[in-house]
Amino acid sequence: MQEISITKARTMIRKAIQKGRELELKPLSVVVLDSGGHLKAFEREDGAAPGRFAIAQAKAYGAVMLGMAGTAQMARAEAQGYFMNAVNGVYGGQVIPVPGGVLVRDKRGMVIGAVGVTGDSSDNDAICAAFGIEAANLAPEI
Amino acid sequence: MQEISITKARTMIRKAIQKGRELELKPLSVVVLDSGGHLKAFEREDGAAPGRFAIAQAKAYGAVMLGMAGTAQMARAEAQGYFMNAVNGVYGGQVIPVPGGVLVRDKRGMVIGAVGVTGDSSDNDAICAAFGIEAANLAPEI
Amino acid sequence: MQEISITKARTMIRKAIQKGRELELKPLSVVVLDSGGHLKAFEREDGAAPGRFAIAQAKAYGAVMLGMAGTAQMARAEAQGYFMNAVNGVYGGQVIPVPGGVLVRDKRGMVIGAVGVTGDSSDNDAICAAFGIEAANLAPEI
Amino acid sequence: MQEISITKARTMIRKAIQKGRELELKPLSVVVLDSGGHLKAFEREDGAAPGRFAIAQAKAYGAVMLGMAGTAQMARAEAQGYFMNAVNGVYGGQVIPVPGGVLVRDKRGMVIGAVGVTGDSSDNDAICAAFGIEAANLAPEI
Repeated sequence: MQEISITKARTMIRKAIQKGRELELKPLSVVVLDSGGHLKAFEREDGAAPGRFAIAQAKAYGAVMLGMAGTAQMARAEAQGYFMNAVNGVYGGQVIPVPGGVLVRDKRGMVIGAVGVTGDSSDNDAICAAFGIEAANLAPEI
Repeated sequence: MQEISITKARTMIRKAIQKGRELELKPLSVVVLDSGGHLKAFEREDGAAPGRFAIAQAKAYGAVMLGMAGTAQMARAEAQGYFMNAVNGVYGGQVIPVPGGVLVRDKRGMVIGAVGVTGDSSDNDAICAAFGIEAANLAPEI
Repeated sequence: MQEISITKARTMIRKAIQKGRELELKPLSVVVLDSGGHLKAFEREDGAAPGRFAIAQAKAYGAVMLGMAGTAQMARAEAQGYFMNAVNGVYGGQVIPVPGGVLVRDKRGMVIGAVGVTGDSSDNDAICAAFGIEAANLAPEI
Repeated sequence: MQEISITKARTMIRKAIQKGRELELKPLSVVVLDSGGHLKAFEREDGAAPGRFAIAQAKAYGAVMLGMAGTAQMARAEAQGYFMNAVNGVYGGQVIPVPGGVLVRDKRGMVIGAVGVTGDSSDNDAICAAFGIEAANLAPEI
């Protein structure tokens, strides 16, 4: 399995932030997790609230751990809230099931990590994450 | 960035409590957090219940960490309850998303902390917090 | 039982800080807990590190909960470390057994709360706490 | 108070890693925390173990929260082990008291954050952190 290199992680973060500036979004925080859900890289833009790392991480963490991107998690949370609550129980409350947690797939379609973005609307967060992933020649699943 | 001095924190607390007395509210508890969500000052009026510190702190803590005042948090909790529940997971259950957690902004509009008030209705709590913040020549966001 | 009024709590904090300034100590953080170990008032001087509330509280909390001042707790920790470790287990890790956690006794000798001070050496912290308690016409046990 | 900008945080991380390569150290993980102990930026070099973020963060977190760099924390842990154990209790076990947690001071000497490095020996970790901080025109306290 291809791992996300630090070079690719940097590209994902820079491009996600660049897209946020182009779209004139609020300051973003961007996390890159590896295939085990562990932190590879993170940046919080100037002006973002201090607690934004935990939000970004929780979007990406649920995606990796469940193998399910933020959009699918949100659909499940709305259809069957008690299920996502219970999932959070087993994952120590570290999952936020909304868009902005975007899976990263390699050329063969294997999940090799996730990008989590927070700061603007959930949909805009997801757009920036996907843009960063594509800029690193990898495939996003929103 | 301007930090909240202990002198300003004292002013905010005294004036918030003074406003509570003027409005003949129940005994108030008032917390001032800095820009990192850490406790700067606190007072609990005589007659307030012993556990009121945690409530006051949780109102202010969520405001600082998310960069979102209590009124906006409550709107989000009512529109998308599972999101605020999940946010509380990543913040260790230390967020109470109702009015009375009021952001403190400096002259340039930067968030430099928050005031949390509890004891009466959430709306009255927020009025007292805002009064205290304005008395210290800073700008409240309820 | 006499409770510590907010007026007395303010006096204790101001006088403890004033003593610190007289002795040219590092910036102090001062907590006042009631007879149940619950926060009544707190101030952190400008320049004190952001995490100092937790230290001040833990010094005072152990004093109230055990009915044993910081100096006695430290003696016990040095004589029988596993005992104070185990005490911390049952109190959720919220006890720091060193001087600076000072019991507050009323005229009849009843424990009505504790003052916790941190910022300088443990011994200097205790001197400031005791000074504040005496200034409020109450009796310290260091 | 000057905050650590994302531009400065990037410089600190890149230069710390560059120093590690020059000295032919093991792969490093480097965290930058702000003045409230909150994550500003992080990178984990390729080949570093997955759990290294938590170690880097814990070195820097204790430094910010206590206002005490890793070397001073280690001295305290060796002189009075039960004190640092108790400190860890109140900080949720999030403190690792060894070199490699390096305070960042601005021109006036105020603590504005910390850098945490892990991967090689504690002393080498601290050298890399200090190198990164100086490269950003800020003052390290090891």
